[in-house]
Amino acid sequence: MNVIEYLISNLERIGVSDFFGVPGDYNFNVLYEIENNPDTRWIGCTNELNAGYAADGYARQKGFGAVVTTYGVGELSVINAIAGSYAENVPVINIVGTPSTKTLAQNIPFHHSFQESESQRFIKAFESVTAAAAFLNKDNAKIEIDRLLKIFVKERKPIYIAVPEDIALMKISDKETDYDWVSNPNTLEKVVNAIVKRIDCAQRPVILADTLIKKFDAKYEFIDFVEKSGIPVTNFLMGMNIVNMDYKNYLGTYLSEYGNLQVKDAINKTDCLISVGTIYGDTNSYGKSIPFDINSHIAIYGTYTYVDGEKYENVKMSDILRKITHKINTKGYKFEKSDLGYKPSISSKNDLSSNYFYSRLQEYFKGEDIIYAEVGTITQGIAPMKFPENCDVQTQLLWCSIGWVLPAAFGAGIANPKARIIILTGDGAHQVSAMEVGNMCRYGLKPIIIVLNNNGYTIERKLSGDENSDFNNIMAMDYAKFARSFKGDIWSTKVTTDDDFDKALRVTQIMDKVCYVDAVTDKLDLTEFAKNVLIDIKKNQVSGNVQKTQKKEKKSDIHKTENYETSVHMSIKEIEA
Amino acid sequence: MNVIEYLISNLERIGVSDFFGVPGDYNFNVLYEIENNPDTRWIGCTNELNAGYAADGYARQKGFGAVVTTYGVGELSVINAIAGSYAENVPVINIVGTPSTKTLAQNIPFHHSFQESESQRFIKAFESVTAAAAFLNKDNAKIEIDRLLKIFVKERKPIYIAVPEDIALMKISDKETDYDWVSNPNTLEKVVNAIVKRIDCAQRPVILADTLIKKFDAKYEFIDFVEKSGIPVTNFLMGMNIVNMDYKNYLGTYLSEYGNLQVKDAINKTDCLISVGTIYGDTNSYGKSIPFDINSHIAIYGTYTYVDGEKYENVKMSDILRKITHKINTKGYKFEKSDLGYKPSISSKNDLSSNYFYSRLQEYFKGEDIIYAEVGTITQGIAPMKFPENCDVQTQLLWCSIGWVLPAAFGAGIANPKARIIILTGDGAHQVSAMEVGNMCRYGLKPIIIVLNNNGYTIERKLSGDENSDFNNIMAMDYAKFARSFKGDIWSTKVTTDDDFDKALRVTQIMDKVCYVDAVTDKLDLTEFAKNVLIDIKKNQVSGNVQKTQKKEKKSDIHKTENYETSVHMSIKEIEA
Repeated sequence: MNVIEYLISNLERIGVSDFFGVPGDYNFNVLYEIENNPDTRWIGCTNELNAGYAADGYARQKGFGAVVTTYGVGELSVINAIAGSYAENVPVINIVGTPSTKTLAQNIPFHHSFQESESQRFIKAFESVTAAAAFLNKDNAKIEIDRLLKIFVKERKPIYIAVPEDIALMKISDKETDYDWVSNPNTLEKVVNAIVKRIDCAQRPVILADTLIKKFDAKYEFIDFVEKSGIPVTNFLMGMNIVNMDYKNYLGTYLSEYGNLQVKDAINKTDCLISVGTIYGDTNSYGKSIPFDINSHIAIYGTYTYVDGEKYENVKMSDILRKITHKINTKGYKFEKSDLGYKPSISSKNDLSSNYFYSRLQEYFKGEDIIYAEVGTITQGIAPMKFPENCDVQTQLLWCSIGWVLPAAFGAGIANPKARIIILTGDGAHQVSAMEVGNMCRYGLKPIIIVLNNNGYTIERKLSGDENSDFNNIMAMDYAKFARSFKGDIWSTKVTTDDDFDKALRVTQIMDKVCYVDAVTDKLDLTEFAKNVLIDIKKNQVSGNVQKTQKKEKKSDIHKTENYETSVHMSIKEIEA
Repeated sequence: MNVIEYLISNLERIGVSDFFGVPGDYNFNVLYEIENNPDTRWIGCTNELNAGYAADGYARQKGFGAVVTTYGVGELSVINAIAGSYAENVPVINIVGTPSTKTLAQNIPFHHSFQESESQRFIKAFESVTAAAAFLNKDNAKIEIDRLLKIFVKERKPIYIAVPEDIALMKISDKETDYDWVSNPNTLEKVVNAIVKRIDCAQRPVILADTLIKKFDAKYEFIDFVEKSGIPVTNFLMGMNIVNMDYKNYLGTYLSEYGNLQVKDAINKTDCLISVGTIYGDTNSYGKSIPFDINSHIAIYGTYTYVDGEKYENVKMSDILRKITHKINTKGYKFEKSDLGYKPSISSKNDLSSNYFYSRLQEYFKGEDIIYAEVGTITQGIAPMKFPENCDVQTQLLWCSIGWVLPAAFGAGIANPKARIIILTGDGAHQVSAMEVGNMCRYGLKPIIIVLNNNGYTIERKLSGDENSDFNNIMAMDYAKFARSFKGDIWSTKVTTDDDFDKALRVTQIMDKVCYVDAVTDKLDLTEFAKNVLIDIKKNQVSGNVQKTQKKEKKSDIHKTENYETSVHMSIKEIEA
């Protein structure tokens, strides 16, 4: 067995059967192995950033993901996606094909290079955004692959492996290594006892759920804990719908003072907060101030846990949850609960409004749907929403890199070809990564893509303090026509009224192909909830750190971008005539 | 004056009047200043990578370029473009808006972050791909801006400046610093004397020109040197057309053994090689072996020069060229010269061929055109071409990052709105960055975009050793329809025969708008020259480092990508009927 066979087959062993990326001059040996291994396949993307996002979306569904890039140009193009996966605990490996060790050592002229001894520069960049990184050579190949895959499996964070052309083909032992890890039994017992003791004497415990529950594969143990304990439960936004929203003890999503005040109240009054798999970030945990000390409570993470400030390491979230579920004494807890979700939608012939858009979507979603929602106005729109049971809602609320959603959902579709995938994206975010629509057609996926077209970066119009700044405008395009420029099974339409949005959603239900809806709203239209949140953020910002300098007159106003003309399109024949 | 006013006005002083980028939550103060400074404007792009390429293309025309990104997500998305600018000596500054120093120091939850103390991680990544990088704070802001801009102006390489929200608004002295530098007069005299002595006793001197001549602003001094000295001159591919190809002593582009054998012969036989502004890389200097020692001759670079192995530092290329032109004794030199360029094109009703494509383009180009050519089959196509005088040919032949060309040409158009910009891109490369077509419309540019549509990564089909590997396929699309999905003045067409390509080029000459031509060739079609080059590279590779592993049968062949069906598009009304 050679090095690349070993790496690919071991990735396949932990569940990675699809590899995203772009071919390049130095990664052919990796690509051949992926094509030729009977259990793996290659998924070509339009560019590396999108491939990285696709691997992230794939990993969110299947546990682990992989992207393959080429030296320099390819790897650096994917680094932002890897950083996003790092921030949000999504294990994606970046496999980089590099020139041969001989070429690198001799520093003979080759392309994708600086003409300098730069071979360690790119791995250095990746050391900042991965849990571990290795540049394979003839002595370390097997050791480093095994070391990194162990970290990958344990930490659920990205890793980076650079494979020179010649090292890829070098023979190594095919002796399998066990990548899994087990909780330290003594620590596990201690932490479980500490938690059970703490819960048993609590009067008003509250569970706060978040996204790392899914990422550390502990959803079933968590649900069991929630059901058996009877403790009221809330979640941060990224942890939405891990708990069935119809569950009797479910309080709703924590939205600080912007909504669901019962949740805020429950958090404020609890004498025993149990957070499980939280990610703190103003957009996920709502606001810069959290109403409790982050680790001075029961805080259960993937590989470690805090109980009132004391840290217990090398204990699995799933093990802790399973054991405390068995040990705690259940008792009835009192809590207040409000109605969840948007009110039923009321259609009209009026211009499509955000209020209608989100309330109608709430009715549209079904159990087992996989919903990918872009950060920005859309996550503000879904925050107060009620979702059906088992509907998987994915957002990227800590890293917040616009453009993530569509390629990530492409990856999710490759991982789950039978699921109904629904993509909600803003127009500005869509323009970042829109080309991947074509690969959805190419690979036979049938997602429903909804572009909330509000003519620019609406959230930035609100946050920057000047709704009319030119920098918040984007280029205009006919999205429905754009979608139809890709070869494949795709239906697209543009809607501008509530009624037509309703009709378009109905059409998607009978279409067995990619559906693409350009849903036009006013550029400043927002739900009431989003308005309140954004006004508050803006108020805090403008008073502090953002300040518009005084406008001075431009020499010339050469870039009118709002009213540029649509041209008439003629064929060669028409022009000749 | 505050920090951001100081930075922007000083960039404007060295010629940067347009700033490319994407707005983000932490860069509003930068954007406001750009909007409000009377001499600068904001150019919004669809994503950061494209914005970085646009700044690169802008700098190639105007000397310096700038891209503005936001913390984490934005800056990491542009790093590959910055690395490309670094490799090819294109001075682009990446200005990054970051959270305030207070937010970073307190490590309170905020988005675009890792929830870890990561504020120095991203600058670390950039230290690997820039000449200098700085994170501004209250003590160093002015000092660091001045230090970095001096390096920027001298080295003509990218720099990175992170500006926290609060530091942007901090008052500093507006005392101007001189960023220019002068040659060390003693060293200059020594190196000029050494060069003149060497040339004066040479019988068969040859000048080898390359792209750094333009990048260090020494074109006029160089041309003067070539004309007055009468020394025969050749160039590497990126240095194409710096010397007028009709100039009597112009030998043609150096293409090693693949073409123009007289050039190879002249280089082999010279007793005095004078290279000016060279970049070595297999794709630029043709082949991994250069037939001379890189520094053991007269090698003039932007800020230093070698004469027979001795290095002279802090001397400007332009100063050296000016002085040696005055001092050398001109004499007649003998040399052999062959005919340059493709033979006249002969149109036909046959399928469009690469042979016709390039010979026809050769006739189409005019003096003063700015031509941006993508790396790959296209640079192989233009390598043997003859260009009219003063036609500017831009390629990215060392870094070779596919997708560079279209956004780079967008930047060139912003820098030179009156020039005729011609973009030659392959289909695979185009899919990487195609969305920027829309911004060309938005900003009123009128480039001619020619997509060489050969249904995949043709050059990788040749280099990987298996023309039919699935990984070299790409998604299918209707490019002409795609172009028309953008709002703006655009004409697009698809051509499949020589005759129709000819007609399309004629149409572009009467169109006063963006012209976009989808030029379809066979997926393996190449010019004779390209075939010879690629066969050779492939031969060297396959025998060495690339090896196809044995094909094993797939469990299922689930991704047929070649023959997927085009759907019928229906409006909502048709579906309801």
